[in-house]
Amino acid sequence: MIRAMTPLRIAIDAMGGDYGPRATVYGAALALAQRPNAGVTLYGRRHLVDVELARLPASLVHVHDRIDIVEAGDCLPGDMTPSRILRDVSSGSLYASLVALQNGEASACVSAEHTGAIMALARRDVGMLSSVTRPAISAAIPTVSQRPCYMLDLGANVDARAEHLVDFSTMGAAMVRLVDRVACPRVGLLNVGTESGKGERRVREADAMLRASRHPNFEYVGYVEGDALFSGHTDVAVCDGMVGNIALKSSEGLARMLAGRLQAGFQTGLYARMVGRLAAPVLRRFLQELDPVRYNGASFLGLKATVVKSHGSARAEGFAYAVRRAVDEAAMNLPDRLMT
Amino acid sequence: MIRAMTPLRIAIDAMGGDYGPRATVYGAALALAQRPNAGVTLYGRRHLVDVELARLPASLVHVHDRIDIVEAGDCLPGDMTPSRILRDVSSGSLYASLVALQNGEASACVSAEHTGAIMALARRDVGMLSSVTRPAISAAIPTVSQRPCYMLDLGANVDARAEHLVDFSTMGAAMVRLVDRVACPRVGLLNVGTESGKGERRVREADAMLRASRHPNFEYVGYVEGDALFSGHTDVAVCDGMVGNIALKSSEGLARMLAGRLQAGFQTGLYARMVGRLAAPVLRRFLQELDPVRYNGASFLGLKATVVKSHGSARAEGFAYAVRRAVDEAAMNLPDRLMT
Repeated sequence: MIRAMTPLRIAIDAMGGDYGPRATVYGAALALAQRPNAGVTLYGRRHLVDVELARLPASLVHVHDRIDIVEAGDCLPGDMTPSRILRDVSSGSLYASLVALQNGEASACVSAEHTGAIMALARRDVGMLSSVTRPAISAAIPTVSQRPCYMLDLGANVDARAEHLVDFSTMGAAMVRLVDRVACPRVGLLNVGTESGKGERRVREADAMLRASRHPNFEYVGYVEGDALFSGHTDVAVCDGMVGNIALKSSEGLARMLAGRLQAGFQTGLYARMVGRLAAPVLRRFLQELDPVRYNGASFLGLKATVVKSHGSARAEGFAYAVRRAVDEAAMNLPDRLMT
Repeated sequence: MIRAMTPLRIAIDAMGGDYGPRATVYGAALALAQRPNAGVTLYGRRHLVDVELARLPASLVHVHDRIDIVEAGDCLPGDMTPSRILRDVSSGSLYASLVALQNGEASACVSAEHTGAIMALARRDVGMLSSVTRPAISAAIPTVSQRPCYMLDLGANVDARAEHLVDFSTMGAAMVRLVDRVACPRVGLLNVGTESGKGERRVREADAMLRASRHPNFEYVGYVEGDALFSGHTDVAVCDGMVGNIALKSSEGLARMLAGRLQAGFQTGLYARMVGRLAAPVLRRFLQELDPVRYNGASFLGLKATVVKSHGSARAEGFAYAVRRAVDEAAMNLPDRLMT
């Protein structure tokens, strides 16, 4: 079933996420329309995938010949622990797409299954780069400037040591330099203050190492505080996975709460409801910007090949963003150049 | 100058914060209007404080006789390190108000100076409770429910150990129970996931200790993720100061960015500008809710007396909130009952 591999064939776990093939098939097709250099192989229940392929709008018919399907099982149960996954999983859509990556049948993999499941199977079946001590998860955060800020690690590690934070700096900077084409990315260490002597010991040690090494491919800007994630003052914000995960999820929670309040504000009272109807286009645009799907796709850095996780709640447009991200990372050969 | 102490006399550092006496004097008077059981002593440059007292609106004239002034120096320079503060500071408005607290001339202290400066001087001059191993900073966060969520620690500690996290749980719960009168507060540990076995070692150890102790005065709800800060699923969210500080500051940064974007959205194009004018009252209410001043005031827990920090950027209304918080903590004798 597998066709001679194009340089940029992306293995898609078609069954993962809240919407399954409904989002992944349409999303993959949207991404192909925007990336003419790529093809995708959809791993999952063929009859479900076929239904979604048949529903694609006419405007996407031209990407059909860059889509392959490989029959594979379902997605994993959400409550499966990584240790059970490692012991028991040798089938399913995620497993099949990662094995395709391992065998060189694809250049990258995209899945919307749980972070822990993807990370556990990817470490086992794709493998880690020997130059990287710990993998990291990175995602783009919208800022007040034109460029996003990439935060890492978002939860691949807890209890990271200073040398891991230094590795994360190099990996994050390489990604921004190669994929987002920022010539000399700014890299900051997240800390509780910007003065020297502040913060955790591992962060202070990483600061000393980064100052001493003077890496030629990025500019180390020193400590940054939490608000720097959104202020546009750094291109890469480096932290332990505990800090990154909680900062990201709390920001998502805040954005969700505010979107709800704003909508409720325009539904309370006759005047507000009337104005809310008039303001709908402006509000819709604003709420779209609040949507985490806008920069959907977390990159797993440190693996031998590109693996991108889509948000479980992403619909087709969000999934397409994650697929484009995977195409762009694979096109730049990011894993091979990650520690440069 | 100091009058016989009322049971609830609050020592106010009148010089701290971005607006100095302009915010602190008016803010203290506003708080007195709402707390008839309290009086304040303003520590600072008398001629500057007098100017602001003379400007108070007629509606606040009735609180004048509960306001004292004590001549003291200025606020501390913002770039002074805690070690230099401890070596050199023996004057100024913050120092004077903390010494008043130490001497029993006041029941609580409020300052808008830098966290590090307040914490260093308060530990030295007010002293720590012998039952508490580490102090913690806590602030209220608005949630989708009626009740706020209190997060601690926000940066008094980095490298907190499991037993410190357990102490923070007890302190946070006591505060919510006594000051906010929630009979049996729910306490959660911030972590990267809710499954057992997840996260940092110290957090897993604290989880085991909290499960074993079954504290009678609060309900331990287990691990919570970052979005729980806003979802109303817990009354107290406990974490290391590094995690709490970065989560809080990133949330503040996000809220600021979104407020800016929303305003910009209603200024782009003729239609949006027109609708924006109609929507102004609804938007103003929404933006006020975004304002961190709404729950201004971070409580320093673990000291022998109540110390509350106001946000440096708070204006009078925000400062008044911090003063009311100090009055309420002192009225409940919170420091003495913190480990119950």
